[in-house]
Amino acid sequence: MKRTRVPPFSGLLAILLLISACATSKPASTPGPLPGWNEGPARQSIVDFIGAVSDPDSSDYVLPGERIAVFDNDGTLWSEKPLYFQMLFVFDRVKAMAPDHPEWAEQQPFKAVIENDRASLEAQGEPAFLELFMATHAGMTTAAFDENVRGWLVAARHPDTGRAYTQMVYQPMLELLDYLRAHQFKVFIVSGGGISFMRPWTESVYGIPPHQVVGTSIEMTFDTRDGHFVIDRKPEIHHFNDKAGKPVGIERFIGRRPIMAVGNSDGDLEMLQWSTAGKGRRLGVIVHHTDGEREWAYDRNSAVGRLDMALDAAPEYGWTVIDMARDWRTVYPPE
Amino acid sequence: MKRTRVPPFSGLLAILLLISACATSKPASTPGPLPGWNEGPARQSIVDFIGAVSDPDSSDYVLPGERIAVFDNDGTLWSEKPLYFQMLFVFDRVKAMAPDHPEWAEQQPFKAVIENDRASLEAQGEPAFLELFMATHAGMTTAAFDENVRGWLVAARHPDTGRAYTQMVYQPMLELLDYLRAHQFKVFIVSGGGISFMRPWTESVYGIPPHQVVGTSIEMTFDTRDGHFVIDRKPEIHHFNDKAGKPVGIERFIGRRPIMAVGNSDGDLEMLQWSTAGKGRRLGVIVHHTDGEREWAYDRNSAVGRLDMALDAAPEYGWTVIDMARDWRTVYPPE
Repeated sequence: MKRTRVPPFSGLLAILLLISACATSKPASTPGPLPGWNEGPARQSIVDFIGAVSDPDSSDYVLPGERIAVFDNDGTLWSEKPLYFQMLFVFDRVKAMAPDHPEWAEQQPFKAVIENDRASLEAQGEPAFLELFMATHAGMTTAAFDENVRGWLVAARHPDTGRAYTQMVYQPMLELLDYLRAHQFKVFIVSGGGISFMRPWTESVYGIPPHQVVGTSIEMTFDTRDGHFVIDRKPEIHHFNDKAGKPVGIERFIGRRPIMAVGNSDGDLEMLQWSTAGKGRRLGVIVHHTDGEREWAYDRNSAVGRLDMALDAAPEYGWTVIDMARDWRTVYPPE
Repeated sequence: MKRTRVPPFSGLLAILLLISACATSKPASTPGPLPGWNEGPARQSIVDFIGAVSDPDSSDYVLPGERIAVFDNDGTLWSEKPLYFQMLFVFDRVKAMAPDHPEWAEQQPFKAVIENDRASLEAQGEPAFLELFMATHAGMTTAAFDENVRGWLVAARHPDTGRAYTQMVYQPMLELLDYLRAHQFKVFIVSGGGISFMRPWTESVYGIPPHQVVGTSIEMTFDTRDGHFVIDRKPEIHHFNDKAGKPVGIERFIGRRPIMAVGNSDGDLEMLQWSTAGKGRRLGVIVHHTDGEREWAYDRNSAVGRLDMALDAAPEYGWTVIDMARDWRTVYPPE
């Protein structure tokens, strides 16, 4: 069942119910704090948790400074199909840079990207992706890379929906971020994606400032160029923020164990384990992509955003699983 | 001149001046926002800067989210003599661990520490310090190290003043941190010291939460031990946050260029350069340790906190130099 149905009843009964609802302190006729969510166990577990840790009279009360919530990004805050959006950025950048690199016409893996030869690219495997990543993410200043990301986000459109990528964020999650902040939570992104790819837009889109974004990073050096100070990006991984790298990234950047963690794939397993194993009440949440109509449906067999071990772990650890088709009234914000 | 002198004048004149002062909107008889600071060009430049960037009607106005101020720690927020306090922690930890390491009695550099042989230790140079650092900072979980730091801070006392180390922070700087926050600045520590050595106490002492502390860090891994999840500390540097490492640390952790930077040594030179070279109004501040009576007097020839190149650079870049003896009315908080 994808929608909750309102049973038919007579006009008189409706009026009586309305009067009754208005007499209570929380009228049922107004939307709750998470209007993009359907009523159900997922929404309820989130509301209950946030209420409990924010209530000074609750035995689960947590001081505001300790109310740390961490969110994965790809597949948790925005979509990740047909590929991680950062990889689509890489492809677009390779094509934009190609005129300055005529040698790429005959040089793999660049050739495959320029020719849109996805099969060849996938056959070349992970080293090819790393080479493409470094060619488009390093060898420039932080300021230049920042400009590249901002420019791409303005111009690029998703191949299936035609939306700007920053319009493919999940409306229910935007509401949840606001709801957490209204309860004095400090919200961090903890993503396997590139930290410098996210920071140019997370504040305007999610309300999450750059220093609350944790992600994969590369080496950098402080240099002088043409009499100006610059920071150069180097083609070497400094911190890989996925799987077991996520708890390490949390320790490195946040320095405090979260009380709530939200993810959607096996890459989030260790982050969920670390966050929910701390003392006191904790909440682990997994977004299950079940909605092939409004978004994409995938889990155990997907190369991007595989959800297998973490889905099995959820009942064991008591994590809340969001069934996107059932639990979300809306997916994307209105255009 | 170490103190500003109030010229003598008659009682009548004093009363007239008092009446005159009370008639103005900011009476001179009440302390300003920075009571631990003497009037003078240093205090004035700080107050002017903060006022200008916070004033929506000023051409120097900066949006609150961009009001990032970075502070060095050792010698800027707390003292650093006779040695960096973290090094005194290392010595105390070596002695505390020695009963479990009988081999250290004959093994350098541990032998020198156990025997308080400072001359031998210094002759062994930097590799010896690094070995001591790793022996006391790695090979344990993050939780265990955190406990070590907290326990030490409760028990240890400074060899010269007898104060707890957290009572050797600078009162004028505590006031400045509050003043900045009152003007919607986000304040970060950017220190060459260990990030995990600072985070256990920066929030209670400075009001700076763990995620706003940037420092030198070591490698870590996420592990399982006795059925529990832990993060282990490994004896390898991950990020060295001094000199040219400071702008890199700023980019890595904060992801935004500060508009104000405060330091006291050549280790802060690049942080000051990077922060003050950005567009718009900026403020660089250097604490000059000139007060041998209330604190310590040192600059160009000090092994700890050497201030030489950055002192020469200050007039060139227009940085404010705080003369501790002249500009600070008080040094430490009341006990």
